[in-house]
Amino acid sequence: MPIEPYGGTLVDRTVAPDEAAALREGAADMPRIRLSDRVLSDLYLLSVGGLSPLTGFMGSEDYESVLGRTRLAGGLPWSVPIVLPATPEEATALAPGRTAALIAPDGRVAGLVDAEEVYDRQLERECSSVYGTTDTDHPGVAAVHALGPRYVAGPVRWLYEDDMSGFPDRNLTPAKVRERIAERGWRTTVAFQTRNPIHRAHEYIQKCALELVDGLLVHPLVGETKPDDVPPDVRMRCYEVILEHYYPEDRVLLSVLPAAMRYAGPREAIHHAIMRRNYGCTHFIVGRDHAGVGNYYGTYDAQEIFETIDRDALGIRPMKFEHAFWCTVTGQMATAKTSPSGPDQRIFLSGTKVREMLARGERPPAEFSRPEVADVLMEAYRE
Amino acid sequence: MPIEPYGGTLVDRTVAPDEAAALREGAADMPRIRLSDRVLSDLYLLSVGGLSPLTGFMGSEDYESVLGRTRLAGGLPWSVPIVLPATPEEATALAPGRTAALIAPDGRVAGLVDAEEVYDRQLERECSSVYGTTDTDHPGVAAVHALGPRYVAGPVRWLYEDDMSGFPDRNLTPAKVRERIAERGWRTTVAFQTRNPIHRAHEYIQKCALELVDGLLVHPLVGETKPDDVPPDVRMRCYEVILEHYYPEDRVLLSVLPAAMRYAGPREAIHHAIMRRNYGCTHFIVGRDHAGVGNYYGTYDAQEIFETIDRDALGIRPMKFEHAFWCTVTGQMATAKTSPSGPDQRIFLSGTKVREMLARGERPPAEFSRPEVADVLMEAYRE
Repeated sequence: MPIEPYGGTLVDRTVAPDEAAALREGAADMPRIRLSDRVLSDLYLLSVGGLSPLTGFMGSEDYESVLGRTRLAGGLPWSVPIVLPATPEEATALAPGRTAALIAPDGRVAGLVDAEEVYDRQLERECSSVYGTTDTDHPGVAAVHALGPRYVAGPVRWLYEDDMSGFPDRNLTPAKVRERIAERGWRTTVAFQTRNPIHRAHEYIQKCALELVDGLLVHPLVGETKPDDVPPDVRMRCYEVILEHYYPEDRVLLSVLPAAMRYAGPREAIHHAIMRRNYGCTHFIVGRDHAGVGNYYGTYDAQEIFETIDRDALGIRPMKFEHAFWCTVTGQMATAKTSPSGPDQRIFLSGTKVREMLARGERPPAEFSRPEVADVLMEAYRE
Repeated sequence: MPIEPYGGTLVDRTVAPDEAAALREGAADMPRIRLSDRVLSDLYLLSVGGLSPLTGFMGSEDYESVLGRTRLAGGLPWSVPIVLPATPEEATALAPGRTAALIAPDGRVAGLVDAEEVYDRQLERECSSVYGTTDTDHPGVAAVHALGPRYVAGPVRWLYEDDMSGFPDRNLTPAKVRERIAERGWRTTVAFQTRNPIHRAHEYIQKCALELVDGLLVHPLVGETKPDDVPPDVRMRCYEVILEHYYPEDRVLLSVLPAAMRYAGPREAIHHAIMRRNYGCTHFIVGRDHAGVGNYYGTYDAQEIFETIDRDALGIRPMKFEHAFWCTVTGQMATAKTSPSGPDQRIFLSGTKVREMLARGERPPAEFSRPEVADVLMEAYRE
């Protein structure tokens, strides 16, 4: 019942527990590549099919094609390189045909890669293509600079012993989310990407979208984010209390996406949509400045890029929204499209403003935050 | 900028005023066909392009094809026969090749038809195909029975001297609506069909839809309706006050559709959508039991029929909604899809209930009607 996975088949590079234990032992004798948290996220997503049809880290041909024409070499739209950076020392130990152990930041074996190619990254070109800037103040650019400079390509296997998301009970794989969607009989499902607490503005947009489809996947990203973003566990409590009190249980799924934020704006919006297609969603909410940071992207860039991507190939459809606020004229949530209010008739707080209020022990107004969510945030900031 | 008219070209069978006056005079010597109000509506809509690509009343080939396979003979989806019924006496005076004067219910010349064919209707078949019933208690079926039994086919011209809608200032032709859409730069426009006063439930659905497109056409049907429907002038005042107070001016157009209601449920939903495509809309709101009456249609029939119609050919997309209500749990408008409420936590009144309240001089609650709308209705029922 859910939409076909991207490229047609849901990839599964996980390994049964017994076999995984044996492979982990065997990994002791292999060349090693140490992963950052963000590469660990990519490895996980590759393994559970979140990045289908990719079965492993990209070779130079796909890498070139993604940078140059926002497609895989085979033609499928793709916006963000999924690459395995290695140091020169790590790369030297690796000839094509060898298998390397992929080591998580905690030192444990996370997986294997069957190396098919080792190549040089194109640092400047990658940054300007993907992030639209080579400025190392950009957190995505900085993250690229911190790794490399060699990329290792090849199919992967997932061997990490525990859940890697921090939310074992909430980390449904694409296959599991698809099962839930099928059980509920949803023909259409919209995904909501978030790396922030959930306020009434988000609730409003989600519910607008839900009115037009069968189900909603609230799909917070819980991989690496900026240090000033609200920690994932606090956000998770916010999602839980708002869903409990304000949403009908049979129309919503809450699960996490253990991806790292790239802050690549428009290109990341496409990437977020592709992952959600693999999780079984037909629609994807794209707000203003989706996946943006600072002033690197125009307000609508992440919405407009969808017009440049082959719509039928992408398959998942964007649902584009403006910023929402409480409108004192109509006494309800709205956006500038649906409200006759002037700027001083709108109740809206920026993320920075909310954090300042919370730091001072002040409660966000009920027009902005559901009280149950405000309680969670007040408590988190008291700690 | 607006979507291409249905079939590619916006039909215009109106005539310049001088020429129209001359043709009206000449009509005195022609055979005559008296029109009912509902056929007058079809003649008008044919003439201004609301029924493009039709340039006149259907011949037997299109009629057959519409009844049998919900398409014009040429293949374009079409759901409702647009036919010119004539009495045996009227038909006798008409040979193919003759032009007949079409006489409005007020006795004035409304237009001309260049008769190309005169054929017998298929009474039972038409009723069961279009209305799903042959029960003469159905108001659409009763209207078919009241006319005929011969149908006259051929291209038309529009000669009526005055506006026929009752709302000369609000009756924008498809070409005019398209101009306004283009002026505003809307790439996508959703139409809202209504034959009822506008309450908060309608406002909610319209605004949900509007969040996803550029503009909203509030397009009340002001042709013939059932005697127990609220009169069009009262409804118009409701639309005007709610738009004035609760909608942003630059995102909404209010214009009338001088079509008669057929109460043909699913087939009429398609018909309503096709007309709105001709008025320049890309999306069309379809609620539960759209264009229904009594218990002749299933709740979702009018939404589901869209799945059986060639989507690309139709071009205009349905936006399907559930019934909306005030949810006392979340303190906002919602539907069962977006609210965790039980039935007794919802504030909703049926049309019948509202009319009963108004008849008793009672004010509908603020959760159901905007106070400005309630004022209009209270006043109308005091008269």
